[in-house]
Amino acid sequence: MVSGRYQRGGMGRLPHAVLERFSLYLREAEGRLARGESTVSSQELARALGLTPAQVRKDLGAVGPLGARGVGYRLQPLVAALRHALGTDRRWPMALVGVGQLGRALVRHRGFREQGFCFEAIFDRDPRLVGRRIEGLRIEGVDRLVERIRAAGIRIAVLAVPPEQAQPVASDLVRAGIKGILNFTATALAVPDDVAVVSVDLGFFLEQLTHHIVSMAQPPRRERDSA
Amino acid sequence: MVSGRYQRGGMGRLPHAVLERFSLYLREAEGRLARGESTVSSQELARALGLTPAQVRKDLGAVGPLGARGVGYRLQPLVAALRHALGTDRRWPMALVGVGQLGRALVRHRGFREQGFCFEAIFDRDPRLVGRRIEGLRIEGVDRLVERIRAAGIRIAVLAVPPEQAQPVASDLVRAGIKGILNFTATALAVPDDVAVVSVDLGFFLEQLTHHIVSMAQPPRRERDSA
Repeated sequence: MVSGRYQRGGMGRLPHAVLERFSLYLREAEGRLARGESTVSSQELARALGLTPAQVRKDLGAVGPLGARGVGYRLQPLVAALRHALGTDRRWPMALVGVGQLGRALVRHRGFREQGFCFEAIFDRDPRLVGRRIEGLRIEGVDRLVERIRAAGIRIAVLAVPPEQAQPVASDLVRAGIKGILNFTATALAVPDDVAVVSVDLGFFLEQLTHHIVSMAQPPRRERDSA
Repeated sequence: MVSGRYQRGGMGRLPHAVLERFSLYLREAEGRLARGESTVSSQELARALGLTPAQVRKDLGAVGPLGARGVGYRLQPLVAALRHALGTDRRWPMALVGVGQLGRALVRHRGFREQGFCFEAIFDRDPRLVGRRIEGLRIEGVDRLVERIRAAGIRIAVLAVPPEQAQPVASDLVRAGIKGILNFTATALAVPDDVAVVSVDLGFFLEQLTHHIVSMAQPPRRERDSA
């Protein structure tokens, strides 16, 4: 399991670092468009995102001939091209498995819908939850998962079940035709090569912060070694 | 903002990729220890995590002389050394700002406590929430944030406020002495160089999955170009 990114490398067309920058360009361009701007220069993008203008021009050159010397990038075609490259120029129905605290927070998260991600089927193992409604969606039993996801043609699933249920549910999701899993279970999942898993492991993110804090509190290694 | 990892590079002692592998070694070693094992070989670690044995030996060699030829790594000292390197060999009190759906799910998340991360102060701007209790913690007003965090000596904060409140709250957190922010606001934060920000942007993770799915559905670029 690799946290917060591909479990398997190089499955998509773009390398991970470029993909990450594409997401940043898209957020920045959408923000400027929303503020009524119509163009942006590679210098402005570079400054906003902490990159070099040369890096910005190289990355965006790969998307298509979007920039013009002296004018910069027109924001509307830039946003459209980035969304197309990232695959978010369409609506993506999603399934959720595990309607606990985290699952409920995810269903209610408004950001998903704004980006075109929409929960269409939600499942839980607990018979006391089955039949209840959240945000207009009826909670269904996991026994119906494969059939329902196949019938709806859903390709993306969010996994928010307890760790011990993670692998069996993931295997069902694969059988149902799911090709991308957002995994909140802090469990490594065994899936076929054509299925991408992005694992969101909050403990891993916190370890990055604590490593930063304890590193800062220590003198640099070279000084200690020569002391 | 870089999603799911350091906002600024190279602040801690370890490069990001090594840090990520340390977290994976730690999870794997803790799991084996919990199952009653006492040693693990570099081959076993490599197989479990999809790495090469040489990479494992190089990474763990940097932590200390933990392995012995023919015996492998003893799990107990390995776990202790990895926790020390990551800074998780102690208890970390945390603050939460923003007690909405996501904030509540985070406070109730059991994994944090098991790893030594413990919410000690939680804040919200909404006067209707102030005074209520979640998991035994009293929700306090954000006006008390700087004073309370300073008095408690808290260094890590989880930010789960609406985007428009993100920067002002982050500035207050910095004034209060916070050195690490887990940022759920999908907003780039301006903070001093000695403060680390790890941003968890769920839209970014989903874009990785959609890019994977649309890339798979297309023929490789070379074939299309020569067609």
